[in-house]
Amino acid sequence: MTEPSRILDDHALDTLFRSARTHNAWQDRDVSDVLVHAVYDLMKWGPTSANSCPGRFLFVRTKEAKERLKPFLSESNRDKTMKAPVTAIIANDLKFYEALPKLFPHTDARSWFEGKPDAIRDTAMRNGTLQGAYLMIAARALGLDCGPMSGFDKEGVKNEFFPRDDVQVNFLCNIGHGDPAALFPRNPRFGFDEVCKIL
Amino acid sequence: MTEPSRILDDHALDTLFRSARTHNAWQDRDVSDVLVHAVYDLMKWGPTSANSCPGRFLFVRTKEAKERLKPFLSESNRDKTMKAPVTAIIANDLKFYEALPKLFPHTDARSWFEGKPDAIRDTAMRNGTLQGAYLMIAARALGLDCGPMSGFDKEGVKNEFFPRDDVQVNFLCNIGHGDPAALFPRNPRFGFDEVCKIL
Repeated sequence: MTEPSRILDDHALDTLFRSARTHNAWQDRDVSDVLVHAVYDLMKWGPTSANSCPGRFLFVRTKEAKERLKPFLSESNRDKTMKAPVTAIIANDLKFYEALPKLFPHTDARSWFEGKPDAIRDTAMRNGTLQGAYLMIAARALGLDCGPMSGFDKEGVKNEFFPRDDVQVNFLCNIGHGDPAALFPRNPRFGFDEVCKIL
Repeated sequence: MTEPSRILDDHALDTLFRSARTHNAWQDRDVSDVLVHAVYDLMKWGPTSANSCPGRFLFVRTKEAKERLKPFLSESNRDKTMKAPVTAIIANDLKFYEALPKLFPHTDARSWFEGKPDAIRDTAMRNGTLQGAYLMIAARALGLDCGPMSGFDKEGVKNEFFPRDDVQVNFLCNIGHGDPAALFPRNPRFGFDEVCKIL
């Protein structure tokens, strides 16, 4: 009843989940444009509701762009972010539904959202966040490390980086090659029976 | 500057992203308790803000439990869900912060949330959704297929399956071995330049 050929090997499971850690210090190694494109070209295939793909992604890499980000970071996130090779700003486009005739062409999915702000916010947040997770997993799959952060001024980052009002900044993620020597001890996770049930 | 030993092979990248599809029809093959536990034991390592781990997961498998779910499914999701080996209910525990002294012991993170309903909802939704994505990726990594769905009565499912008020149902995900013959043609994705920018 199993299908062993499709199960990933231990190396892959370690890289994605079991040995992967949130990094706070970074090796002095570049993340190339090619690699940033490769991360997107993987994560874009992850599922979203009605293929809505509401996530928008800025990859902040130059010193100038990092300086624009700096004032909005919480103190505990500031230094490590300034030193990270890339900081991704993960945002949601609240006008995502305008692309549905292209992304989900077999039905009129745009009409599910037009003029419905609650459905728009709910769908943008849920699916943009799923895409943020796909981005981190894709980065890890390509040998990179991640350091996601919610501690920053979301309105400030939105105003600085997204001139349009109908964009919602979701979270930040440092990306690079982490320095394993600087890792904190790993925090515990819930056991299965604490948060799961099979019915 | 690359670290080839950590990059996943093509088989893994295909299984996680490039060939993986949202499935609507299911082979008549069980998903064992052992495999459900294995999925959780992988996905639990995915990062959440302050290790908050707000996601809660019900794996609905028996005919009786499926019948409890049935009235709340949208028509287009009903038949395929009744036939799926497992349907995961992905929910957020809005009391997640009570576990922070255990999950994030080095600081008083509970006080960041206590009595702050906006911070609670925001953090629960963002991080519970990240965990929902990790669940799908972990299932794929273990050879399973997923069929995530937002089309259902969330309040109804909450009232039926979660007696506590401080739980928020997020999305559903059918899990099993998909029938590739029943797949729809794949919908397009945005190109890099349509939704990303390197600064």
